[in-house]
Amino acid sequence: MPRNEHDCIGTIEVPDDVLYGVQTYRALQNFRISRIPISHYPMLIRSLAFIKKAAALTNHDLGLLDELPLKGIVAACDEILAGKHLEQFVVDAIQGGAGTSTNMNANEVIANRGLEILGKCKGDYDTIHPNTHVNMSQSTNDVYPTAIRIALIFKIRDLMKAMKYLKAAFAAKGEEFADIIKMGRTQLQDAVPMTLGQEFSSYSVMIGEDIQRLREAQSLVREINLGGTAIGTGLNAHPDYAHKAVDYLIQMTGLPLVMAPNLVEATQDTGAYVQLSGVLKRVAVKLSKICNDLRLLSSGPRCGLNEINLPGMAPGSSIMPGKVNPIIPEVVNQIAFQVIGSDVTVSMACEAGQLELNVMEPVVAFNLFNSLDMLRRGCMTLADKCVRGITANPDVCRSMVEKSIGVVTALNPYIGYEKATQIAHEAMSSNKTVYDIVLEKGYLTKQQLDDILSPANMIAPRHIPNNAR
Amino acid sequence: MPRNEHDCIGTIEVPDDVLYGVQTYRALQNFRISRIPISHYPMLIRSLAFIKKAAALTNHDLGLLDELPLKGIVAACDEILAGKHLEQFVVDAIQGGAGTSTNMNANEVIANRGLEILGKCKGDYDTIHPNTHVNMSQSTNDVYPTAIRIALIFKIRDLMKAMKYLKAAFAAKGEEFADIIKMGRTQLQDAVPMTLGQEFSSYSVMIGEDIQRLREAQSLVREINLGGTAIGTGLNAHPDYAHKAVDYLIQMTGLPLVMAPNLVEATQDTGAYVQLSGVLKRVAVKLSKICNDLRLLSSGPRCGLNEINLPGMAPGSSIMPGKVNPIIPEVVNQIAFQVIGSDVTVSMACEAGQLELNVMEPVVAFNLFNSLDMLRRGCMTLADKCVRGITANPDVCRSMVEKSIGVVTALNPYIGYEKATQIAHEAMSSNKTVYDIVLEKGYLTKQQLDDILSPANMIAPRHIPNNAR
Amino acid sequence: MPRNEHDCIGTIEVPDDVLYGVQTYRALQNFRISRIPISHYPMLIRSLAFIKKAAALTNHDLGLLDELPLKGIVAACDEILAGKHLEQFVVDAIQGGAGTSTNMNANEVIANRGLEILGKCKGDYDTIHPNTHVNMSQSTNDVYPTAIRIALIFKIRDLMKAMKYLKAAFAAKGEEFADIIKMGRTQLQDAVPMTLGQEFSSYSVMIGEDIQRLREAQSLVREINLGGTAIGTGLNAHPDYAHKAVDYLIQMTGLPLVMAPNLVEATQDTGAYVQLSGVLKRVAVKLSKICNDLRLLSSGPRCGLNEINLPGMAPGSSIMPGKVNPIIPEVVNQIAFQVIGSDVTVSMACEAGQLELNVMEPVVAFNLFNSLDMLRRGCMTLADKCVRGITANPDVCRSMVEKSIGVVTALNPYIGYEKATQIAHEAMSSNKTVYDIVLEKGYLTKQQLDDILSPANMIAPRHIPNNAR
Amino acid sequence: MPRNEHDCIGTIEVPDDVLYGVQTYRALQNFRISRIPISHYPMLIRSLAFIKKAAALTNHDLGLLDELPLKGIVAACDEILAGKHLEQFVVDAIQGGAGTSTNMNANEVIANRGLEILGKCKGDYDTIHPNTHVNMSQSTNDVYPTAIRIALIFKIRDLMKAMKYLKAAFAAKGEEFADIIKMGRTQLQDAVPMTLGQEFSSYSVMIGEDIQRLREAQSLVREINLGGTAIGTGLNAHPDYAHKAVDYLIQMTGLPLVMAPNLVEATQDTGAYVQLSGVLKRVAVKLSKICNDLRLLSSGPRCGLNEINLPGMAPGSSIMPGKVNPIIPEVVNQIAFQVIGSDVTVSMACEAGQLELNVMEPVVAFNLFNSLDMLRRGCMTLADKCVRGITANPDVCRSMVEKSIGVVTALNPYIGYEKATQIAHEAMSSNKTVYDIVLEKGYLTKQQLDDILSPANMIAPRHIPNNAR
Repeated sequence: MPRNEHDCIGTIEVPDDVLYGVQTYRALQNFRISRIPISHYPMLIRSLAFIKKAAALTNHDLGLLDELPLKGIVAACDEILAGKHLEQFVVDAIQGGAGTSTNMNANEVIANRGLEILGKCKGDYDTIHPNTHVNMSQSTNDVYPTAIRIALIFKIRDLMKAMKYLKAAFAAKGEEFADIIKMGRTQLQDAVPMTLGQEFSSYSVMIGEDIQRLREAQSLVREINLGGTAIGTGLNAHPDYAHKAVDYLIQMTGLPLVMAPNLVEATQDTGAYVQLSGVLKRVAVKLSKICNDLRLLSSGPRCGLNEINLPGMAPGSSIMPGKVNPIIPEVVNQIAFQVIGSDVTVSMACEAGQLELNVMEPVVAFNLFNSLDMLRRGCMTLADKCVRGITANPDVCRSMVEKSIGVVTALNPYIGYEKATQIAHEAMSSNKTVYDIVLEKGYLTKQQLDDILSPANMIAPRHIPNNAR
Repeated sequence: MPRNEHDCIGTIEVPDDVLYGVQTYRALQNFRISRIPISHYPMLIRSLAFIKKAAALTNHDLGLLDELPLKGIVAACDEILAGKHLEQFVVDAIQGGAGTSTNMNANEVIANRGLEILGKCKGDYDTIHPNTHVNMSQSTNDVYPTAIRIALIFKIRDLMKAMKYLKAAFAAKGEEFADIIKMGRTQLQDAVPMTLGQEFSSYSVMIGEDIQRLREAQSLVREINLGGTAIGTGLNAHPDYAHKAVDYLIQMTGLPLVMAPNLVEATQDTGAYVQLSGVLKRVAVKLSKICNDLRLLSSGPRCGLNEINLPGMAPGSSIMPGKVNPIIPEVVNQIAFQVIGSDVTVSMACEAGQLELNVMEPVVAFNLFNSLDMLRRGCMTLADKCVRGITANPDVCRSMVEKSIGVVTALNPYIGYEKATQIAHEAMSSNKTVYDIVLEKGYLTKQQLDDILSPANMIAPRHIPNNAR
Repeated sequence: MPRNEHDCIGTIEVPDDVLYGVQTYRALQNFRISRIPISHYPMLIRSLAFIKKAAALTNHDLGLLDELPLKGIVAACDEILAGKHLEQFVVDAIQGGAGTSTNMNANEVIANRGLEILGKCKGDYDTIHPNTHVNMSQSTNDVYPTAIRIALIFKIRDLMKAMKYLKAAFAAKGEEFADIIKMGRTQLQDAVPMTLGQEFSSYSVMIGEDIQRLREAQSLVREINLGGTAIGTGLNAHPDYAHKAVDYLIQMTGLPLVMAPNLVEATQDTGAYVQLSGVLKRVAVKLSKICNDLRLLSSGPRCGLNEINLPGMAPGSSIMPGKVNPIIPEVVNQIAFQVIGSDVTVSMACEAGQLELNVMEPVVAFNLFNSLDMLRRGCMTLADKCVRGITANPDVCRSMVEKSIGVVTALNPYIGYEKATQIAHEAMSSNKTVYDIVLEKGYLTKQQLDDILSPANMIAPRHIPNNAR
Repeated sequence: MPRNEHDCIGTIEVPDDVLYGVQTYRALQNFRISRIPISHYPMLIRSLAFIKKAAALTNHDLGLLDELPLKGIVAACDEILAGKHLEQFVVDAIQGGAGTSTNMNANEVIANRGLEILGKCKGDYDTIHPNTHVNMSQSTNDVYPTAIRIALIFKIRDLMKAMKYLKAAFAAKGEEFADIIKMGRTQLQDAVPMTLGQEFSSYSVMIGEDIQRLREAQSLVREINLGGTAIGTGLNAHPDYAHKAVDYLIQMTGLPLVMAPNLVEATQDTGAYVQLSGVLKRVAVKLSKICNDLRLLSSGPRCGLNEINLPGMAPGSSIMPGKVNPIIPEVVNQIAFQVIGSDVTVSMACEAGQLELNVMEPVVAFNLFNSLDMLRRGCMTLADKCVRGITANPDVCRSMVEKSIGVVTALNPYIGYEKATQIAHEAMSSNKTVYDIVLEKGYLTKQQLDDILSPANMIAPRHIPNNAR
């Protein structure tokens, strides 16, 4: 039997089998936007339950909340924290109202589930009221940002783990390929020799640096405004509420949360989101660069650079037999473009904040959550389905060094830039090697040349003998 | 009982109850990225079925495909066009491989469903082979872009319908409010009078212009490269294949599709996507501007402009009783930010095309589909849940005109810019009205003033009497 | 001797040798932002002079402006149109105030220069007043957007000319390289054969399409709001003013300008800018894609694809002798990134319009002007310093086709996808050619193979003989 | 008399009065792009001189560079460091070739000026050769990024100073307005009371946080790759060169530069640029938000919020007498949009790096330099020409609190959310105040009401008396 519920807009009928109430129901009607419900982000739902439980315990400690509603609220929160009732979190991830629908979805589910646990009827809001009791001392404007931040921290940590895994995969290849000499390229033109190991180690180093940047961004996200209520002034909150509630939260989540020093500022500020989004964009830019390189280096097999082989993960073509494509780097490139576009969305949404609140936080959270999830999946996929299976073509690599003109660079300190330029030109037009031309011209002895052009001598700084020049 | 299937990578076991085969199965393993399957876009699946059916009929006409596989393929396609088997289209919307997984998902489902219809076993690919028969004369590189474009056209048309609906809603308010005089504002500062009807009519005109731009963008999208096969050269396609297949497609879809004049160019080109994305961004920018205005004009109720009232769609706050917020414009703003960010993603993906193909099309399609869907929902929501219910506060509007200083502008032609400036200053510092000051100073008679400052005379060009100056 | 001038803020001393006055002077103090004065865009200054002259003539026709000030204003405008006084347009291109400083800079320069021409003293504003006379019947809010649009049209036309020149350069190379067979590549992997001429012709076609898009965007830009005055209601303008002034403008500029049908809408709307910016972004995306390709195809000379040679425009390296880099495509890529970023700026600025006006137009104009200028220069540079000098390496191109595995695709219709796949694999592992393996296996006769694998037969659709399969 | 100079492309005539040579001359021909020469950024030129001097001293210490060229190089560098010869740095800021033209411009100017100082002829490159001597042990690929980074650090520091100045201006207003009670607004709707001081203090706190983020970004930028030469392997550099040269640089610049731990990675990596750009975008987003608020709060004067007055910096309109607009916040908004768009450009340019080098660094530097310069100017302008002159309208502020409905929120703990909602509705429909209605209904005594609704009691957390509920 459906139950009637009312709010300041009017009364509506809510199906009896759902835990949510009138305001969630309205939100379902109002917001058919992305068709992705907030339950798509279970970590967000868990975070809301953490906060509601912490608030209830604090309110009880302060003598504001009676034993009975406390019991119901805490029990309902514990069930949610155990992963239950996820399907009751139904409002669209992109919503107006600055997250009020999300907060009320949580308030209503917790109130009704709490009532059930206490053996009461759903809708018996005298016993546990979604606003008066579950939302006591709170406002969407402090609860919602706090929930987003807690969820973000967990997701950042997951991404960092995936990046460490990817970093290790590149580092392993860096060691495996340490002795493979190849041509370095700048501006896609043959430059000077290096090792394939140096190439892959660089990728490992890059990702390591990005992990550091994520760690820094995470540390900004942990500043929360719980206790600020509507606009950060803490209206209607007990003077001891904020720090007690935050203490509970720290204890429950195990996260190093801190109370923002200025709650009015913290309630309207979205700087930490912009910063995090910028760092995710950085991660995306780097991953995309690396994937571009992997695709270049594995181009071919006969008409490309062909220095490395990516593992074949799927037939490459519905028409071209035997074609195997770099599908994993390609999908990571696309993740990167998605993240970079999302960063613009986040920037615009954060810029659009007005006065005491930024009402655009739902779309900010939507994009940050998606970016974090996709980057995490991308890193794991790249490591497992690509990097770990990469093999080298050492003969191809070495032969390119030998026939290259770029090695002439190593002769600069011995014969000068001008003569070296002439040799380069002659090599280019005659199709001869640099080695042969220098010998012919008698600029250097064979022994000198063998020493200077030994690949191992070209991949690091080196003392030039005094008599060289 | 699961069946074994193989491709050029190896053999795997496919569950017997699924219609897809080995390549789809691999794609499921390889791409866990957005967790949004291509079935999220039913119009894309329908478009693939249109193409596969058109290709089969054409191949049969050309004597390349026998009766039996034709029968199976067509029957399977017809079922898909009737909305069946959607759940078999499982690959992630964001994927590497330039859409090969999507194309093979379709090829495999159609082959196996065709086999079932013919009374054969799934996997009996000698009878209907996903590549040899279903994909005959085709390549992912012509099928996939063609499918995207057909789906886009249907979605563009749906968006245009929603925009027309919204345009009409604004136009109706424009008429309803035609006689309400209010202050126009530039740079958020009081400017000169206008009617509230002019305000709303402007929004109607804006949306009307955007519908025109969408129509133009649609006309670019209908250029398809079917028949180009792998790189646009048409390798392995019968010389008559392309135009016959396109004719079938036109007939089935009812869309004014055209064959691209240069298929090599068309296969690598993504200009139409960039253009469409740019137009969607334009729509988003305009909608966002309008929603910003609606939020400004309805600000208050006591401490804001309060010229209009948006219908209350939900309680506005979990803490502030009676607060009703502009939640519908707010969600449309967020849609706009999402679309604008997506445009950057589309641009980057299109820029990343290399040589004969753009491999990043999946992420392009993902973003265009999402933007089209969200804008459509946003327009309908804005019309139904906001614009149609807007009411005006005519007294507030008129009283602001009367106390404003900006009306002094209308005196320029009579007393000159310099004197008008002095009056403005005096009004500002004395808190008197412009009307009273001019009378006091005796610059104009009461009758003149009443005429000049009559609101109705200030909202349109007007002949200045010769003796005015 | 400096002269004193005053406005509603107060009185200041203006150096006597400048033509501008107090308001320009204030703007110089207020806006030190980009340090790029509006004189950087001479076409904008010319457009302002067109408008001021058209307005003066119209006002005189309507009996509102006396002969004397008319004479001064027209003479001053004619000098500006002849290219004089550019250095007097000093305000920063990025400015607050919605262009008021730019408009007043023009009003003041024209007033003072007009006074000089009439033999009066600068500052004798009773004779010609910057506001009362030069700005008569106008507001910044209609003058400024109109000036921007006129300047944009001229710049769009210049860009179109440059693009036509570049298109012709690519088309010429398309013909020159029509007989050079090469491997097509998809996903950077060897695909199937094509000609180098097809490659370059595609670029020509792409640019041709973009010229069409620019033409369409131009047609939107020509809609102007002159006559709308402050907010589009036309307050203080004579009922005949708007269309008469527009007629003068059309006659003077030779441009097909049209009066916007709804001036209130036109005054606040920036849709045409967003559209134009989107199209410029499209041009940028395409140019960048083409330049990426040129850099790939010319990579090497020994360790890359090396299919083409770009003309050497500069020594490539300060350390690597003889290195010549693809510096022209590289700079065009950078222009493209600049334009794509600018599109975001334009979108945000246009979204930020509020109520009756968009105050952010200066930054919109700044970006559109820069993008148009840089794209124009980029197209000319690319054509002259790169494309026209490109040479091919036909031997390299052909040898890659011969050793490629991708040609196996052409055998599909004769031996089926499965056998073709096996051959591809064997070729890959054995380092043999497809040709030799097929012969060995006896799948086809030498004659058949020679026919099927003849490059000329692989670059277009082809009738497959009935007995093939 | 012009002199002939040659490079690997050929010989050209260089005017005798210029210090630069053939390669700079070619760059002038090749790159007419932005028309902004590198001399537009004097700090970049100084940084190049620092590096060239440090390299020369190091090379001399290592016995690689003789006394004579050392003397010439050092003397020329010192002149440049003293601000001379800026006009000789002529190449376009946007250029292909990864900065080679910029590096060679420096090498050539220093060589020729060094020769002049030594009493030699310009072009006598046997004595001092631009490559062999001035560029000794260097490559553009380590010099150019190092120069950019040094310039960036100086510019970051300047921006931080400007931000501190702006922060102080907001903080001062925060104190000045500490006792002015006003309505806080969320979602542009009346919320609950706060002080105007809290509003302005928040802005001060925001800017303070951004200064911290800039400091962190700066610390990444100081990692340089000098000594890596062409691709980071240090080819042709003495093993002791890198650390000695960096030591000299640290000593000369006074900056805490550090040598990148992995030079191959550092040579291709642009992560620090992406990060810095992201932080600048954050600063821009915040400044824009603050300026949006200032424009809202000062809207009016009669038909807006009118809580504060911005100082009038210019007449606001060419047609509306006495209108004064928020031109300074408006220009800061536009700077913000420019910076946010530039961030997209930087991201794309950094993503486009390939293999051992990112060739797109010139456009990255161009955008970062411009963003830093414009943000700095924007902060100073905002502080000096706007914030410091802001005055409050305390009566307007207080009267809005008194007539507001939002104060009903403070009654929640005493009468419950449901009753409070009813009161809000009655106030809304009856036009009565909350105060009067509660008294009428007798829910609370006058004394209680006076206490609860005392503004001072509503702007901070507060102990609710036990008997309240």
